[in-house]
Amino acid sequence: MPDTGPSANPIDVNPGELDVVGIGNALVDVLAHASDAVVEELGLVKGSMNLIEADRADELYERMGPAVEISGGSAANTIVGVASLGGTAQYVGRVRDDQLGAVFAHDLSSTGVRYTVQPATDGPSTGCCLILVTPDAQRTMSTYLGASSLLGPDDVDAEVVASGTVLYLEGYLFDPPEAQEAFRRAARIAHEAGRTVSVTLSDSFCVERHRDAFLDLVEHHVDLLFANEAEITTLYRTDSFPEAADGVRRHGTVAVLTRSERGSVVVTDDGLVEVPAHPVSQLVDTTGAGDLYAAGFLYGFSRKMDLATCGALGSLAAAEVISHIGARPEADLTELARPILEG
Amino acid sequence: MPDTGPSANPIDVNPGELDVVGIGNALVDVLAHASDAVVEELGLVKGSMNLIEADRADELYERMGPAVEISGGSAANTIVGVASLGGTAQYVGRVRDDQLGAVFAHDLSSTGVRYTVQPATDGPSTGCCLILVTPDAQRTMSTYLGASSLLGPDDVDAEVVASGTVLYLEGYLFDPPEAQEAFRRAARIAHEAGRTVSVTLSDSFCVERHRDAFLDLVEHHVDLLFANEAEITTLYRTDSFPEAADGVRRHGTVAVLTRSERGSVVVTDDGLVEVPAHPVSQLVDTTGAGDLYAAGFLYGFSRKMDLATCGALGSLAAAEVISHIGARPEADLTELARPILEG
Repeated sequence: MPDTGPSANPIDVNPGELDVVGIGNALVDVLAHASDAVVEELGLVKGSMNLIEADRADELYERMGPAVEISGGSAANTIVGVASLGGTAQYVGRVRDDQLGAVFAHDLSSTGVRYTVQPATDGPSTGCCLILVTPDAQRTMSTYLGASSLLGPDDVDAEVVASGTVLYLEGYLFDPPEAQEAFRRAARIAHEAGRTVSVTLSDSFCVERHRDAFLDLVEHHVDLLFANEAEITTLYRTDSFPEAADGVRRHGTVAVLTRSERGSVVVTDDGLVEVPAHPVSQLVDTTGAGDLYAAGFLYGFSRKMDLATCGALGSLAAAEVISHIGARPEADLTELARPILEG
Repeated sequence: MPDTGPSANPIDVNPGELDVVGIGNALVDVLAHASDAVVEELGLVKGSMNLIEADRADELYERMGPAVEISGGSAANTIVGVASLGGTAQYVGRVRDDQLGAVFAHDLSSTGVRYTVQPATDGPSTGCCLILVTPDAQRTMSTYLGASSLLGPDDVDAEVVASGTVLYLEGYLFDPPEAQEAFRRAARIAHEAGRTVSVTLSDSFCVERHRDAFLDLVEHHVDLLFANEAEITTLYRTDSFPEAADGVRRHGTVAVLTRSERGSVVVTDDGLVEVPAHPVSQLVDTTGAGDLYAAGFLYGFSRKMDLATCGALGSLAAAEVISHIGARPEADLTELARPILEG
């Protein structure tokens, strides 16, 4: 008997050769611990993502404490999470042919993610995200896009996009103008192939910067939306979370809304599915929480699991990534997910 | 009443402007988890440090899992530990003017360590150490020396070396021939200024490679020796730890011998000082254990503390660094050391 309750997936999932194809800004994270006072001194808004130029990146880096370099990039983190769960995935994003670009490419392919975009041979260096982690495990990000901003529509391989059950796009792509074009082209190709198009709003300041474009996208061009509370309320210019959730629902888009320690809700035309947060052994660094939630959800979604299971996988992957420094899973997520998948 | 027991320091410590000046191979660590089977497949000897060429580094990196980049280099880790304890310190070692070189320099200066060696503008890239961490927290290292091998006697600033209460040299410097010269020159300058010269044997395979030179050094040119059980027994070609310890003692060199979870012993002409290991909350990655032990010991030593306190500070710093990934302290060691320093 097909599941027809609110946890049933209203989207007709059309399986391709790959589970997920992700497109985003390719970045290496530079993570350092910092006090709240330092975040303030540097003129940063705690918890936000700020775009910075090369000069400002140099200045901030000089004032940061000793750091750790780990590959990052929102959609790239998600794609690695999908692979860690045993999914098949490909990533599209651009680095330069420098040392950090080689690190980024290695950290994708060594997890089994397909990555074929050639590094730029000139222009700005590989993009990086300077991340200050405060004692409350919150992260404040300053992103120098560098070579990632060179991603354009020509980098979107139609065959690759058409082969993914789900296309996953990060909202941050709306910052570099060329990438916006790549974003739209990819969504068109995926829909023409009958695939699911998903997007994450990424950051409330990013939503503010591109609000009209995002509204149009969410209401007319996207099947599955990921957002947290701040992002979705910013998009609908309301203080009310239920009102914002209703805004998306009215347009037939499935909305997956994360609420930190209060878990997440999946909003569809058939109702709400509430998903509890997964218990966290120790909260160390929230970098990547949303990215890995999306990874778990998308893995389940592409394998046609019900929405409650998709959400449970998202919560599990998010809980793992916030228990340590960095936005990529350290544990084998397939192993961790066994109780959910076999239960 | 002066301390005249076995814990009294028999070396006449002559304080300079800086507590410690360290010289070593400047490397960025590339750390990845790996199974014992992978270490074996790659033809590596678990727990050792192997020197590799650029081609082999590329091959190994390609076969490693996703990694984390953290500044390393044995003596550099020690020097950062001294600074983290509140000591004043300077580091001498060479990188290239590339991205990883900039990371290395940043991670020194942001901890308060003085570092003035100019990066090489051509030649090999910044050196790196590919580290596989097995589930037992043991590390297996493959080092591509790169630009660090360009360190030569001219890079040793006589004024800097003469200003350090203790000169600290890593045994790994015996691998690149030019650095060996830098090593000898620095030891000469320090002794002429009446300072203490200390050395770590670094690795038993390194001892094997340069055994005669090390024996000459330890017995005639060094005041303070750091070694673990495998290194000191390799140096004296014996299976007996007490016999090896006695070998050093007979030449009037103070030997600080570490024995992992069994703690350490300081061997002097006046007898033995046994130092228990510091409790470890969780054993994650032993990379840097010896380096940080030396940091704690040298900080106490340069401040004229008795040998038991020096050893306790060493155990404390080592315990911190093996509780997380990477060979540099994450916690504020000054804070952690307060009970020892005030007790």
